[in-house]
Amino acid sequence: MKKIILLMGFICINFMTIDAQDKDKEEIKNLLETQRQAWNNNDLELFMEGYWKSEDLKFYGKGGVIHGWDNTLARYKKAYPTKEHFGTLEFVLNDISMITKGAYYVLGEFHLKRSIGNADGIFMLVLKKIKGEWKIIADTSS
Amino acid sequence: MKKIILLMGFICINFMTIDAQDKDKEEIKNLLETQRQAWNNNDLELFMEGYWKSEDLKFYGKGGVIHGWDNTLARYKKAYPTKEHFGTLEFVLNDISMITKGAYYVLGEFHLKRSIGNADGIFMLVLKKIKGEWKIIADTSS
Repeated sequence: MKKIILLMGFICINFMTIDAQDKDKEEIKNLLETQRQAWNNNDLELFMEGYWKSEDLKFYGKGGVIHGWDNTLARYKKAYPTKEHFGTLEFVLNDISMITKGAYYVLGEFHLKRSIGNADGIFMLVLKKIKGEWKIIADTSS
Repeated sequence: MKKIILLMGFICINFMTIDAQDKDKEEIKNLLETQRQAWNNNDLELFMEGYWKSEDLKFYGKGGVIHGWDNTLARYKKAYPTKEHFGTLEFVLNDISMITKGAYYVLGEFHLKRSIGNADGIFMLVLKKIKGEWKIIADTSS
């Protein structure tokens, strides 16, 4: 009897863990969908809310490491100066996996359709729950 | 007096945290140096020890997501069939940052010098301490 109760408890905890991860993944997908829609409305302010507003945010690409939220915003402003540069963004999310409780990584693709020439690439994000909200703390795009 | 003791305690804890992070970073650098040397000795077995031996390991690149340690090994074997394909590997580590206790990300560059043509790119790794050892749980290379 004891064993059955223990087993049922174990199964319950497992289901709860899976449920919690599903909820986390849903919230992370929502964050990225908000970013995508913000991008397509040329709303860089809302787009940037997905990132951790900290000097410790890292944005990494072929051009090197950009340190901090302010410099990441400046990089976006420089690389996408007009509506034509923004174009229309689509994400493909290939994987969302838990690192530890409260931290995930995302593997995805970005596809920008633009009159000035499309842009496509892959990204890896690390997200962390900070003060109850998911934030991208590191972004590698190439 | 109480305040001074509290302050000193706080300073001590801060120093201990920095010390612990320095130790973690040193261990992670050692893992990558072991991988680099293993690569340059064409010792794929030792190289692969840096990765989490799990079906949940992810290797991501322009070709999509590879799931699991076995498939990652198979991908390396296919992409690097001879000594000439291995060439000589150098890493540039641009950033090592803690995600949460026991989990870090690394932003780096790989440079392969080869008689059949050099190969260069950037990578982002997520590492976790598993059973007392640092392991790469996700690798995005492009």
